[in-house]
Amino acid sequence: MLKKINMTEKFGLFDDHWSPKIIGEINDSYVKLAKFEDSFTWHKHDNEDEMFLVAKGELTIKLRDGDIILHEGELLIVPKGVEHMPVCKDEVWVVLLEPKTTLNTGDVKNEKTVEKLDWI
Amino acid sequence: MLKKINMTEKFGLFDDHWSPKIIGEINDSYVKLAKFEDSFTWHKHDNEDEMFLVAKGELTIKLRDGDIILHEGELLIVPKGVEHMPVCKDEVWVVLLEPKTTLNTGDVKNEKTVEKLDWI
Repeated sequence: MLKKINMTEKFGLFDDHWSPKIIGEINDSYVKLAKFEDSFTWHKHDNEDEMFLVAKGELTIKLRDGDIILHEGELLIVPKGVEHMPVCKDEVWVVLLEPKTTLNTGDVKNEKTVEKLDWI
Repeated sequence: MLKKINMTEKFGLFDDHWSPKIIGEINDSYVKLAKFEDSFTWHKHDNEDEMFLVAKGELTIKLRDGDIILHEGELLIVPKGVEHMPVCKDEVWVVLLEPKTTLNTGDVKNEKTVEKLDWI
């Protein structure tokens, strides 16, 4: 029997920042939830488009040609190869959609790199 | 310059039921919005998982082994090959994620089949 996923319930299961959790798999991609706070790392994904959908709060996606500010119910698809850096003043809750091969820090490896993602 | 997508604004651009509109492409998939009302068609997608995320209202996904009722903020991923039929009493707004190859009625062709999807 399939099970539905309640995103609010799932967001309640973790508190750590910049550490996406897998909530579902669809074709070659994972649907993930993450909580962000402060700033991430400039990076790009050479082979994967990725989607950021804001579930709560305000998220800025810095791009080399300007910033895009996302509020609840707004999404941005960052195409492969495009450098970006998520930043936010206060905590923001984000739904991510990315191919399973996606590393959170893309072409960069640093203290924010998460090598193995957990399911929640 | 990339553009963000505000889902509420996009839902305001159409009124027809069972006719998904494309709002974005990500890797091999489209992100689509649709408004459903009443009942659809029993069908399956032989090669594609598909995601239903409810943005407004209540959606029942009928499955051969039971019904799953989705409310706002809840999602269901229907794996390839699994027969399903969306039904709802009142209008529901749904975010869909499906490979570009996906036909809305899957292995069935009838009056609800949409051969060509529009972008909004």
